[in-house]
Amino acid sequence: MSKLFERHRAILEKAIDACQQRYSWTAYPESPSSKIHGKEIPAEGKAAFDNLLGKPFPLDMPGTNGQVGEEVSPFTEMPLGITYPKVDVDKLFEAAKAAQREWSAQDIEERVGVCLEMLDRLGQPDSLFVNAHATVHTAGQSFIMAFAGCGANALDRGLEALAYAYRAMKDVPATATWQRRFGAAAETRLEKRYRLVPRGTSVVITCATFPQWNGYPAILASLATGNPVIVKPHPKTTLPVALFVRTMREVLAANGHDPNLVTMAADIRNEPVTIDLLHHPDTAIIDFTGGPQFGQWIENNCPNALVYTETAGCNSVVIESSDDFLGMCNAIAHSLCQASAQMCTSVQNIFVPRDGIETNAGHKSFDDVCAELVAAVDRLISDPKQAAYLCGTLVDEGIFRTIDSLRSAAGVSVVRDSSPYAHPEFDQARTATPLMLRVEAANKALYGKEHFGPISFVISCDDADHALQRATEDVREHGAITSHVYSTDERFLDRAEQDYHGAGASLACNLTGMPINFAAAYSDFHVTGLNPAGNACLSDLAFVTSRFRIVQTKFPAVAKSG
Amino acid sequence: MSKLFERHRAILEKAIDACQQRYSWTAYPESPSSKIHGKEIPAEGKAAFDNLLGKPFPLDMPGTNGQVGEEVSPFTEMPLGITYPKVDVDKLFEAAKAAQREWSAQDIEERVGVCLEMLDRLGQPDSLFVNAHATVHTAGQSFIMAFAGCGANALDRGLEALAYAYRAMKDVPATATWQRRFGAAAETRLEKRYRLVPRGTSVVITCATFPQWNGYPAILASLATGNPVIVKPHPKTTLPVALFVRTMREVLAANGHDPNLVTMAADIRNEPVTIDLLHHPDTAIIDFTGGPQFGQWIENNCPNALVYTETAGCNSVVIESSDDFLGMCNAIAHSLCQASAQMCTSVQNIFVPRDGIETNAGHKSFDDVCAELVAAVDRLISDPKQAAYLCGTLVDEGIFRTIDSLRSAAGVSVVRDSSPYAHPEFDQARTATPLMLRVEAANKALYGKEHFGPISFVISCDDADHALQRATEDVREHGAITSHVYSTDERFLDRAEQDYHGAGASLACNLTGMPINFAAAYSDFHVTGLNPAGNACLSDLAFVTSRFRIVQTKFPAVAKSG
Repeated sequence: MSKLFERHRAILEKAIDACQQRYSWTAYPESPSSKIHGKEIPAEGKAAFDNLLGKPFPLDMPGTNGQVGEEVSPFTEMPLGITYPKVDVDKLFEAAKAAQREWSAQDIEERVGVCLEMLDRLGQPDSLFVNAHATVHTAGQSFIMAFAGCGANALDRGLEALAYAYRAMKDVPATATWQRRFGAAAETRLEKRYRLVPRGTSVVITCATFPQWNGYPAILASLATGNPVIVKPHPKTTLPVALFVRTMREVLAANGHDPNLVTMAADIRNEPVTIDLLHHPDTAIIDFTGGPQFGQWIENNCPNALVYTETAGCNSVVIESSDDFLGMCNAIAHSLCQASAQMCTSVQNIFVPRDGIETNAGHKSFDDVCAELVAAVDRLISDPKQAAYLCGTLVDEGIFRTIDSLRSAAGVSVVRDSSPYAHPEFDQARTATPLMLRVEAANKALYGKEHFGPISFVISCDDADHALQRATEDVREHGAITSHVYSTDERFLDRAEQDYHGAGASLACNLTGMPINFAAAYSDFHVTGLNPAGNACLSDLAFVTSRFRIVQTKFPAVAKSG
Repeated sequence: MSKLFERHRAILEKAIDACQQRYSWTAYPESPSSKIHGKEIPAEGKAAFDNLLGKPFPLDMPGTNGQVGEEVSPFTEMPLGITYPKVDVDKLFEAAKAAQREWSAQDIEERVGVCLEMLDRLGQPDSLFVNAHATVHTAGQSFIMAFAGCGANALDRGLEALAYAYRAMKDVPATATWQRRFGAAAETRLEKRYRLVPRGTSVVITCATFPQWNGYPAILASLATGNPVIVKPHPKTTLPVALFVRTMREVLAANGHDPNLVTMAADIRNEPVTIDLLHHPDTAIIDFTGGPQFGQWIENNCPNALVYTETAGCNSVVIESSDDFLGMCNAIAHSLCQASAQMCTSVQNIFVPRDGIETNAGHKSFDDVCAELVAAVDRLISDPKQAAYLCGTLVDEGIFRTIDSLRSAAGVSVVRDSSPYAHPEFDQARTATPLMLRVEAANKALYGKEHFGPISFVISCDDADHALQRATEDVREHGAITSHVYSTDERFLDRAEQDYHGAGASLACNLTGMPINFAAAYSDFHVTGLNPAGNACLSDLAFVTSRFRIVQTKFPAVAKSG
């Protein structure tokens, strides 16, 4: 039995139990507080990050042929100056294939044990701090978000996928005895053995904003089931990927396995390698996180591989009524601000009846709702320190252009304008507060698609049913990852549930007092796969069961004596 | 709780246990013997079949627009004269979609209970006898094969898939409670409910030879997980499908469900509807059994749907040595004869070292091996009654042309010629005994593809390693569903296992004394999905887990008092 598996067995068993009962649990520290970690480790993490700047990232990669890198910190607007191995794609695939043979021959516990060890290493405070700084200065998140959302929360999603992979593999017994008579013949007695075989090389394309959150589940699900993994980071957010790839390779090598089971194919925008990876004849599995257009292109144009996508959609809120008007507005405002609404769970479209709504604070007109949403946003970000915590920066400078063009688009009126907020630490930080636009429901050409960044629409509808109809139609056409409804009417809530579910979306009802963007590992099935926002769920059995196949051998049983 | 589920719960639980331990078990009677069934039921089954001939099949179908049918009995060469509803494809899909809503809202036990009831009804002797006669006079099987192979054996594969579907669905809990603190806020406590949502309309394309064996698993896996199913039978073998579709519709209706959850789109070769079904915008799942070319076309050209295929390949035997020469030759000969080698598990390519092999009966030259294989075939079919039992007829008259062209192909020498055998009951029976051809290993253009029907090649190789190399190369290029090796050398067996597994094929070693074509439900994972002979396995978790998705609703928990 694998020593690593034994060492981490309790945490795997807890993860399996959490997946089955779907309660709240985390295996890793979410808080960067010095009360937990002391002063030294955080300082070392910062120093380790600083020490990476301005030089080639220390990472050996097969097929290296030069260096690439073009990351710019959204906080300083300065290039990080870090370069990564530029790889010959064919040589990378050769190395992956070569690594597969020994790895796929390992027993399940050895592979899963190594994966658990990777998570454990990545969950140590020293890793978490340098990972957080790297995420801050690439994805543009605030430190606290980078530490939790790209640390513990992402590791939990990885452990969750690993737990499913382990269970799916253990569902196949190693051996069986089979005996029966055919007609008048003597009894046939066979021994059978069943072997799990990986699909082949797995290509994992991570996104600019949360590369760990989708990356860990995909990588660990593929790796645990025997497949070598090539990670293709977004050119804007390569450093956090390079860090975890390095750690994974170290864990592999330290435990006697080929580090080329996890490799990285870095690129820059002007010389992309993605298509070469996707269409390589060895590519057997593709996991993609990114924009919906490219995601759907992959779904339709890569029949050579299993394809798992998580993209984006038009996340909506339908407001019918509320028994906690202030709480509701605060909750929605939090979603509009958090990570500058660059999360796949950020709300974009807020559907409100034109004649207003009934609330615990009396009737609120459409304008009252807009005003309170704006006030709630303003309250959240009036303190620059809090704004910096909550909003971070923009990962993509193109968002400024989107904001500029939308605020003067035909048919909109600006409910709240976007402007930079003064970051207390970084003068050059690429910041933008939420742009909120009022539009008529008929103007769906404008709001009926994802506008990436802190942009939202308050949409004037005939009534709550019209709001529901419009929101769920958008789900069908453009996808959704999260959907919210606020109502005190049980019948309306039932209808909303039916309609959202019918459109292939999950629904959150009347959430207040918590960050409503939060998707909980072990509990929330993230992405339904039933609408255009992606075809894969983090995590369910379907996310893992096709990553390996079963071959068997059968042979006559040797008769037992006596 | 569903009454039907309760009624059949024990059999489902037994099936789950059998899948997990993979022993031999059947839930249905395999033998048509009058010792079991008496005289009356078999006679009624025959009468029921006779009564179907020469008239429209009694089956209501939505969107009916005329009648089609062109089946000809391979035993009598007479048209059956049965017609089936010709359907308007769009109307059929509309009806399927309409049926889905109510069905998908049922709880898991109700859906699985209805599916178990279907299997139970199809497994009753009255159904089994009429099904066997219908299979005889379409697929061309002998009665005994039709009764078992298209009766109990197929129902077992259906029950096996249903057992996996049930487990996969039950893996998702119905509800959960989730609570945690975010920062300094009060504890958040949420209730969550999880709902399984079907993918959408499932199109099941059955083959001419064994429509039930692949059909039942696909239909039941889709139906149990909430999807309506449209079955597209092969124009040569529509009647057995019409029979089970009728039974399934009766069971649905009798239990208060919409019979349009299972419909049939019959066609004839000159007016095929398959492409219309595959590319219909509502098609969400495709299960295909048939030829490898069309199967691979579907895999590459239907990104609109999940695609599960079982096609065919070059099933091989590698002979290195034997400690039971006669038993080995008998076993291989049985595969060459059974169902006129029209099974997906029939052997085609027999690789033998040019210098012969060592056996328990001394050294056997290549010619000795050929001679004993021929003798074994001749022994099996010398008695016309036994030949009829074992070989049945040819489902496709085109096989005669293949035989004619191959026996005079360049580079072959005829080891055993094919000729009709005299069927003891049907003068016009379309019969052909095995054609066995000797070829050199270099002549792979000839044997390196599937030749459907009683055609086999004894392939002269440099040595056993060359045989293994050639056989496994064919697996990679052309696929394989079964593979056999005979050897007394443990090291060679190990190598063969490594090489076949490496090529993505399962392996049977030294099987004798049993029909080696037999693939056992609950025990043999049928089709690996790792080579060109298909991408789907009957049955594993991967066969079922993607047929449904998960949506969820979360909402604040009502605080409990005290």
